[in-house]
Amino acid sequence: MSSQGLSETQVEVREAISKICQRFDDDYWMEKDQKQEYPHELYDALTQGNWIGICMPPELGGAGLGISEATVMLQTIAESGASIAGAQSIHANIYPLMPIIEFGSEAQKEDWLPKMMDGRIRSCFGVTEPTTGSETLKLKTKAVKKGGKYVINGSKIWTSSAQVASHCVLLARTSEPTEEKRGGRSKGLSLFFAPLRRQPNTPRNRSGGGEGGGTELLPGLEMRKIQKMGGNAVDANEIWFDDFEVDESNLIGEEGEGFRYVLHGMNAERCLLAGESIGTGYAALRRAVKYASERFVFGKTIGTMQAIQHPLAKAWAQLEAARHLTYAAADMYDQRRPDAGAQAGAAKYMAAEAGFRACETAIMTLGGMGYAKEYHVERYFREM
Amino acid sequence: MSSQGLSETQVEVREAISKICQRFDDDYWMEKDQKQEYPHELYDALTQGNWIGICMPPELGGAGLGISEATVMLQTIAESGASIAGAQSIHANIYPLMPIIEFGSEAQKEDWLPKMMDGRIRSCFGVTEPTTGSETLKLKTKAVKKGGKYVINGSKIWTSSAQVASHCVLLARTSEPTEEKRGGRSKGLSLFFAPLRRQPNTPRNRSGGGEGGGTELLPGLEMRKIQKMGGNAVDANEIWFDDFEVDESNLIGEEGEGFRYVLHGMNAERCLLAGESIGTGYAALRRAVKYASERFVFGKTIGTMQAIQHPLAKAWAQLEAARHLTYAAADMYDQRRPDAGAQAGAAKYMAAEAGFRACETAIMTLGGMGYAKEYHVERYFREM
Amino acid sequence: MSSQGLSETQVEVREAISKICQRFDDDYWMEKDQKQEYPHELYDALTQGNWIGICMPPELGGAGLGISEATVMLQTIAESGASIAGAQSIHANIYPLMPIIEFGSEAQKEDWLPKMMDGRIRSCFGVTEPTTGSETLKLKTKAVKKGGKYVINGSKIWTSSAQVASHCVLLARTSEPTEEKRGGRSKGLSLFFAPLRRQPNTPRNRSGGGEGGGTELLPGLEMRKIQKMGGNAVDANEIWFDDFEVDESNLIGEEGEGFRYVLHGMNAERCLLAGESIGTGYAALRRAVKYASERFVFGKTIGTMQAIQHPLAKAWAQLEAARHLTYAAADMYDQRRPDAGAQAGAAKYMAAEAGFRACETAIMTLGGMGYAKEYHVERYFREM
Amino acid sequence: MSSQGLSETQVEVREAISKICQRFDDDYWMEKDQKQEYPHELYDALTQGNWIGICMPPELGGAGLGISEATVMLQTIAESGASIAGAQSIHANIYPLMPIIEFGSEAQKEDWLPKMMDGRIRSCFGVTEPTTGSETLKLKTKAVKKGGKYVINGSKIWTSSAQVASHCVLLARTSEPTEEKRGGRSKGLSLFFAPLRRQPNTPRNRSGGGEGGGTELLPGLEMRKIQKMGGNAVDANEIWFDDFEVDESNLIGEEGEGFRYVLHGMNAERCLLAGESIGTGYAALRRAVKYASERFVFGKTIGTMQAIQHPLAKAWAQLEAARHLTYAAADMYDQRRPDAGAQAGAAKYMAAEAGFRACETAIMTLGGMGYAKEYHVERYFREM
Repeated sequence: MSSQGLSETQVEVREAISKICQRFDDDYWMEKDQKQEYPHELYDALTQGNWIGICMPPELGGAGLGISEATVMLQTIAESGASIAGAQSIHANIYPLMPIIEFGSEAQKEDWLPKMMDGRIRSCFGVTEPTTGSETLKLKTKAVKKGGKYVINGSKIWTSSAQVASHCVLLARTSEPTEEKRGGRSKGLSLFFAPLRRQPNTPRNRSGGGEGGGTELLPGLEMRKIQKMGGNAVDANEIWFDDFEVDESNLIGEEGEGFRYVLHGMNAERCLLAGESIGTGYAALRRAVKYASERFVFGKTIGTMQAIQHPLAKAWAQLEAARHLTYAAADMYDQRRPDAGAQAGAAKYMAAEAGFRACETAIMTLGGMGYAKEYHVERYFREM
Repeated sequence: MSSQGLSETQVEVREAISKICQRFDDDYWMEKDQKQEYPHELYDALTQGNWIGICMPPELGGAGLGISEATVMLQTIAESGASIAGAQSIHANIYPLMPIIEFGSEAQKEDWLPKMMDGRIRSCFGVTEPTTGSETLKLKTKAVKKGGKYVINGSKIWTSSAQVASHCVLLARTSEPTEEKRGGRSKGLSLFFAPLRRQPNTPRNRSGGGEGGGTELLPGLEMRKIQKMGGNAVDANEIWFDDFEVDESNLIGEEGEGFRYVLHGMNAERCLLAGESIGTGYAALRRAVKYASERFVFGKTIGTMQAIQHPLAKAWAQLEAARHLTYAAADMYDQRRPDAGAQAGAAKYMAAEAGFRACETAIMTLGGMGYAKEYHVERYFREM
Repeated sequence: MSSQGLSETQVEVREAISKICQRFDDDYWMEKDQKQEYPHELYDALTQGNWIGICMPPELGGAGLGISEATVMLQTIAESGASIAGAQSIHANIYPLMPIIEFGSEAQKEDWLPKMMDGRIRSCFGVTEPTTGSETLKLKTKAVKKGGKYVINGSKIWTSSAQVASHCVLLARTSEPTEEKRGGRSKGLSLFFAPLRRQPNTPRNRSGGGEGGGTELLPGLEMRKIQKMGGNAVDANEIWFDDFEVDESNLIGEEGEGFRYVLHGMNAERCLLAGESIGTGYAALRRAVKYASERFVFGKTIGTMQAIQHPLAKAWAQLEAARHLTYAAADMYDQRRPDAGAQAGAAKYMAAEAGFRACETAIMTLGGMGYAKEYHVERYFREM
Repeated sequence: MSSQGLSETQVEVREAISKICQRFDDDYWMEKDQKQEYPHELYDALTQGNWIGICMPPELGGAGLGISEATVMLQTIAESGASIAGAQSIHANIYPLMPIIEFGSEAQKEDWLPKMMDGRIRSCFGVTEPTTGSETLKLKTKAVKKGGKYVINGSKIWTSSAQVASHCVLLARTSEPTEEKRGGRSKGLSLFFAPLRRQPNTPRNRSGGGEGGGTELLPGLEMRKIQKMGGNAVDANEIWFDDFEVDESNLIGEEGEGFRYVLHGMNAERCLLAGESIGTGYAALRRAVKYASERFVFGKTIGTMQAIQHPLAKAWAQLEAARHLTYAAADMYDQRRPDAGAQAGAAKYMAAEAGFRACETAIMTLGGMGYAKEYHVERYFREM
């Protein structure tokens, strides 16, 4: 990718992240995928560079940049060969915090954000439920207040990184929906930043909890890792809450406003995901172009043949178009423009399509080798 | 389209052009298409607003803007319902002049450009030949110098607007290709601004020449109008040159440098064409959305059905991505960045695809009515 | 197309029709399209060969063959370059008669079918209405019985060939829908074979009525020809009925059973349309392959280049798959298998897609020439 | 799938195979995939039913059926949930033997074929080489005759089932290519049926060799299993030959004719692969339809929504078209028609496309669950 259209700050982010990611090559990511291991090393390296705080307030030690820059960061991570899984290990520590940054109390921000930045707190995001899917307003997980605590019962699904996270941004129902007026149902949902494990991480400590760590789950929690097609460096989980207690100090903002807070982070996430898809697509193209220039058939490289050239050129043009759309959407988000949502949705769709088609094209370019794990494009393809 | 991403100047261009185009509605363009008539009225209206001079030097009376703004102008014209044909009636007076602006002598610019702006001179572009197609370097039309004149023999094809143009930007071979070194063949081509008709247009006079005008073709010229699928408001032609004479004062720049001069205008044209395609796509979507919100089936509008909604949303997202790519390419062109060419090529491809798919989607949305001329989308489709 | 999979009878049909169609080449069809003229000459030639009777009972002079053979006939006509319009001039005399053949009285069949076969009667099909579209059960055209006549009021749209037809297979409501039971609404519709013009055609007389004929419309009828993108050799119309009278002897079968009768012909039509689409697709490929083997660029024919070869091969494979599906569906229809409907629907969809993509590929193969009328593929494209 | 278009014999094959496959459900195949284990149990069950001999001569105990029936068998296996990997465990014992059946000596057939049928011999297919890919004529593996043996040096890649096979159908060069005349190079290749392991399998014994068996590789052989995206129930391998000896009695047919013999089996393989792709596609659709009819969103099943219905209907229509094309190709192959090759190629292409798109559609239908291994469609997708 040329740097056209990127601001100076964006170029700096890209170069710095690119340098860090060079330490984690495709073989690193292949191994993480096969062993289903979390990329603690990348996470630690980015924590050390204070990159988790890219969007956090400067007064608390963050970089105070926007989603435009965070999208550059995640595109660059994905493009290094880390693909979606690598990017998601970081991304779950960015957009779910937007509600805290925007709506949390000063005390909460002062307590939590610095710990996020140095790795003592690691977040996951618990919104989706098994039977309600994207119908967020029908969520069944309930939080009932008793004394200074909320007692939570229900379940969540597709919660990424829960095996290594110390906390969860958790959406639960605190009052029954009223049918009186449209929108009434959204009022009953509240957002928590709930600790999941008995003790905090040590700063920049990769043990994190989960598999290897000594920090066991709090009472009332159960988790199951979902086996999936790809993205195996980051776990996805079902979580069950059985009289699980969260202190009232972990309620974000006001009771009943959780749905609105969550929506705030959604368009940010769409931009980040778009960036990750584009990065994965460029990674696939890079592999494909390399192979096409090295593989000889009938006395010339396959890269000289139209049947190889044209699909690659098409895939590149699609990525370029999606890229410009994505950064336009991120700029609009950072300017808090009301029409940012439509652009962010279009960006996520177009970037996912472009990324997927780029991976498909790369596999076709490599022929049989596209199917072999050692050439990496099959991994990109599964992640897209 | 929202105005996001457009500069203030671009927004002004868009608004001014949009206002002019409101006088020429879809019925105007349907009639021009059916009668195969040149849109003299639009051309005159834009000439009166001095829009032909959008990219011309301010010291000669032009606006001194860039291809970014010209692309906005042509997108806006196409989007009004004029589609590709309407835009092409203007576009042939923009990018073929780039070589004159860049490489013409002061005398030529002072003589020709003001006449272009007030309509006394109208240009067409004669590069493509019947048997050489895009192989520009194999052009067979020859110009042999005799005294103060060049005598031209050969033919051109797909020359648009030749029925109404007073002049032609004409590429011809002035010396035989030498095979000595790569690029040698390009050296033999020269570029002319050749008068085609006996007498000039009157300023802002729509008679122009061609059908209604009294200004007959110069000796040594013959033309045939090509019947085609669409774009019938603008004629496309074969032209034959038989000892056709052009004065040496009409040679642009140096002899033998014509190919290089032409290339200069190509990336500009790609951006303009991309803008026109996008404009046509939005025009089709506007018609489709209108129909979908008015047509009732089974007791509700078809616009409430996913089978109608989803393809329209997809078409819109594709246009948005192509639009951002197109304006990024135009900006790069205006900055004379060396990588503008690749972006302009990608923009032309992606915009043409997006525009075509938008028209196809519009036809499918209208069902049988998409096939009827009175709903206009079949015209957009043929033009794309 | 090789003859594989065709029965001996089908091969005979194909060869005989192919021979007749050789008399009507692409230039014939281009002229019919441009002048918007009905192809009376083809119709007459097929009438003389008794091909209109391909599916009619042998005892009345028909060939007694099935939709499998009629599909071969229409594919062959379309494939000759006649495309959809040419095929539709015949097709409207095949499937709309299926209800008469299946449900008409002996007297009706003896009266009408021989006249159909020798051209004295020519049919059109009046089902679709302007505001009800495919919601056949909501038809508003009413037929009220008065004495020995039905008085008809309402309108129809997209009725093909009405400018030249002597009769119309007409669906109208004879009683109000009852909501009592599901299907109740379909009970109120009745099917008529209504004369449209004052006097019959003479046998094998191409004057037909309409433009050239002296046979004016009956009282109570008004028609408007719809201008459309393509298929201009066959007119499409809106028809208004204002106290239009039809004798009760023209009621097909029983009153109130019209909807069921019409459905009977629908799967037949789907097969025929599939065949026509495939034929048009092969015609486009033939043109494209011819051009690709004649057009030289960079010293070799474009047909040697992968960018031309591969899309053509893909288009061919898609047509082959659609062709096998279509004839499987037609066989099932002829065997009156209950699952023929799903296959016929799939065949119509796949054949239309394959035919359209073949035409699109042909246009791309011809480049600019694909847009010129003289190369014919633009006409095929508009018809698909 | 309905049985339309299948002969009585084909229906019998389908029913018998379907019954056997019911014993091996999706969970069986998921486990084989995850553990990368060969499906010995399916192989044994089919051996016991004598299905390996489906195309073998009746006089040697085979069923004497054609590729049409073998395609039904493999489609049915794949459709049961076994997908491509399951089918390939059988398929490698069908088409590679076609050269033996057609060109082997009586003694070879009498010795080998009965052992194939009862499982004592299990075959793999060694043609492709690492650097020559599909350029079969440039194969580098050499076989030099010394005494009564051929000494083989070189390597093969993508040889499936080599970990469990006792023999390999092996193509090697026995004389240098002569450039004198076109086709000269193909003359130097010879085909062997080479034993790979020290001792034969016991009849219907699943130990086979490879991982668990005691039957080690013969001297001069080395193998490496290729890690790949899917199809993990069947191993794919690189094999190196280092002075590997094959007795001259294992030469199939005449020396120098190997390339011609191999081609004979290629069109058969194309039909079988097409059948397997279609079967996998139907398996994916079955899962998708089941999910769509059980999953409730906004108070109704997602199967009632157009955004789910239409892609599924399209995928089904594509599979149906590919299915009819595939069986037409197989019939032509069984009739030894010269144009069978083009149809078989088209069938393989269209079936692979249809199968892949059906799997993609199924994943989209299941949403997030499409990504989870427990719903099986991700496995089908990886195998396609």
